[in-house]
Amino acid sequence: MAAPVVAVVGGGQLARMMSPAATALGVHLRALVEDAASSAAQVVPDALVGAASDEAAVRALVDGTSGDGSAGRGDPAAAEPADVLTFEHEHVPNALLEQLVAEGHPVRPDAAALVHAQDKIVMRRRLTELGVPCPRWSELPDHAALEAFLASVGGTAVVKTARGGYDGKGVRVVHSAEDVADWFEAAQAEDGTGVPLLVEERVPFTRELAVLVARRPSGQVRAWPVVESIQEDGVCAEVIAPAPGLTPELARAATELAVRVADGLGVTGVLAVELFEVPGADSGAPTVLVNELAMRPHNSGHWTIDGAVTSQFEQHLRAVLDLPLGETTARARWSVMANVLGSAHADLAAALPEVTALDPGAKVHLYGKAVRPGRKLGHVTVTGDELDDVRSRARAAAAVLRGDAPDPVRVTSGGAR
Amino acid sequence: MAAPVVAVVGGGQLARMMSPAATALGVHLRALVEDAASSAAQVVPDALVGAASDEAAVRALVDGTSGDGSAGRGDPAAAEPADVLTFEHEHVPNALLEQLVAEGHPVRPDAAALVHAQDKIVMRRRLTELGVPCPRWSELPDHAALEAFLASVGGTAVVKTARGGYDGKGVRVVHSAEDVADWFEAAQAEDGTGVPLLVEERVPFTRELAVLVARRPSGQVRAWPVVESIQEDGVCAEVIAPAPGLTPELARAATELAVRVADGLGVTGVLAVELFEVPGADSGAPTVLVNELAMRPHNSGHWTIDGAVTSQFEQHLRAVLDLPLGETTARARWSVMANVLGSAHADLAAALPEVTALDPGAKVHLYGKAVRPGRKLGHVTVTGDELDDVRSRARAAAAVLRGDAPDPVRVTSGGAR
Repeated sequence: MAAPVVAVVGGGQLARMMSPAATALGVHLRALVEDAASSAAQVVPDALVGAASDEAAVRALVDGTSGDGSAGRGDPAAAEPADVLTFEHEHVPNALLEQLVAEGHPVRPDAAALVHAQDKIVMRRRLTELGVPCPRWSELPDHAALEAFLASVGGTAVVKTARGGYDGKGVRVVHSAEDVADWFEAAQAEDGTGVPLLVEERVPFTRELAVLVARRPSGQVRAWPVVESIQEDGVCAEVIAPAPGLTPELARAATELAVRVADGLGVTGVLAVELFEVPGADSGAPTVLVNELAMRPHNSGHWTIDGAVTSQFEQHLRAVLDLPLGETTARARWSVMANVLGSAHADLAAALPEVTALDPGAKVHLYGKAVRPGRKLGHVTVTGDELDDVRSRARAAAAVLRGDAPDPVRVTSGGAR
Repeated sequence: MAAPVVAVVGGGQLARMMSPAATALGVHLRALVEDAASSAAQVVPDALVGAASDEAAVRALVDGTSGDGSAGRGDPAAAEPADVLTFEHEHVPNALLEQLVAEGHPVRPDAAALVHAQDKIVMRRRLTELGVPCPRWSELPDHAALEAFLASVGGTAVVKTARGGYDGKGVRVVHSAEDVADWFEAAQAEDGTGVPLLVEERVPFTRELAVLVARRPSGQVRAWPVVESIQEDGVCAEVIAPAPGLTPELARAATELAVRVADGLGVTGVLAVELFEVPGADSGAPTVLVNELAMRPHNSGHWTIDGAVTSQFEQHLRAVLDLPLGETTARARWSVMANVLGSAHADLAAALPEVTALDPGAKVHLYGKAVRPGRKLGHVTVTGDELDDVRSRARAAAAVLRGDAPDPVRVTSGGAR
């Protein structure tokens, strides 16, 4: 067995962050990147430029025809076929994946699992079959179906496009069918590009949680501690691990739920299950509903790089290679990850002197991406014993990278340094 | 400020392990590698093939002429001049380094500091000037000087070549000048290739310690906890962090010594100070003597990747870029690093299933190097609360990678899993 070869579709920060894990394990990583200067291409020597929808590009990624003998490409593994094909996003044509599997190429997660992360209607149907608690939901063949649903839930609900949404895109809070008239029209497109719609109740959640698990083809599953995820404008802004004040019972229930989903859907690799925590009926114990799924390393798991024995990126590589999974225990009492969403700096590197001076213990992760408003450009993780301190430190460091002045209220109350 | 560019001479595992740290910080790493398939070239897209002694190659490394616009090289930083030139080994011609500095290229550590890691006579002279405790030593102009030294130390001593030694090479225990007659002859070579010799007393040490520090050009210095280093055949086999049973006084003294050396020699980047712990005179407190120096990340600091808040590789990048240094505190009570020196496996990757199954918490680092007897092929770090357990786990995992059966005595006594 020479170096295992993992081929990953996508050149963003998730593929980029697989690279340090692959380097440590001696795994050869090959990436299909959107652009020769993309986040992952900056750190993966064996990078091919191409689209995830381009069969020839995906086949080159699997076959390994990129080795050209030059420096940085002299690794003989660059010419080897991939041991497994995996993904940092879900936008790959399933027909191609099924064909690759039929030809004997392992694809993990496979198309049958991946479809649940690609299509929210398929996901809701299957979770409902599995008895997994979800928000009340309905498919939306027409306006009338939406109006009927709205009437049943008190007049406000959340409409989603079944496919193509992410980070709050493809999600709209509605009060009448008029609010998504454009989406209904688009859904009816006669050229076959129409994306079906679904509606979900607007859940009165107390907070959002996430459970990250990894599953091998052999069925072994490991879960990290349940985290709290704090969203801003539909985008993950902060993650606290473990979720503060979570009862052991609910932590166990949430974890069992995620394992059930991983098993039920036949997921291989990392699965992120995003949850709503909701108050129990009649003042009973709180419970959880499944919000979204992602079948890849996920923003809610970035804290694991610095805060867990095994990071989600290492675990994803292990899982898709069907290697025994690593320990998922936390390395500190608290870990807080703060995202850097957009920046006033022209380049985040300009803030390196300031952020490293501010907090020598903050773990800074920059993605090498051009600055755009609201774009995920990097993150900071801080670990420690006191949550308030850890949280204010992570926020302050992220604020420096964003080019904001640190929020004085937060810093004063949380123990600035 | 776009992505900082760090150029590193060398393509071995030390340059390889700088890559994950560079990836996190958004630093562009460019490496001068011996071979297109070398350990570092496998994971650094911007790698140039060339010799450290080749002026044109080193200039290309500094100037950044390698960007060719292909995938994996499309990063515009590949065409940018390096912000700093640094090293993973000391075998670079000093005249060239001085010339680069004169032309305005930062070189860290610079030639004036680096010479102390290149030439043991220069090092011993300077440390003696600084009042740093060293073994008794002498230059060896001729046989008579050696016989006189041997007579003064009881008949046994250690002769070293001033330059070119590493991992026990260029070191010989002698009882008479006859034992190094070949080295004396080589030292007299009339073609100028002769390497001078020095002799040191054979120190009756109780154990070997190492202090790792990093120093910025601005003078800021940070030290990691003092470690114990266990050598086999002159090669580092195991490192225990912190050194067990070390008194706070001796830990402080050893750290102050290393800082004094870093300051006195004007080191920038990581400095490893290898020490002998020796019994105190008249049953007094033990003390330390300086054995060797290395001005780069060092085997005694590999544990920091998994066991310290800031790894030596991240710290080296920060230091040579003159960025504020990171926290050096340990993340666990004990960390043990076990080297994999040679292997019965044709390829270490073949042992990945077994080692990951044996110990889900062991952090495995493979260097992507071809197997040769005694060669440093990888290492394993285990962290935890119980030293015996941590140590036996690290050894057992390294044994699996070496292809040995785990030592049954160690496993039984130390808590196998």
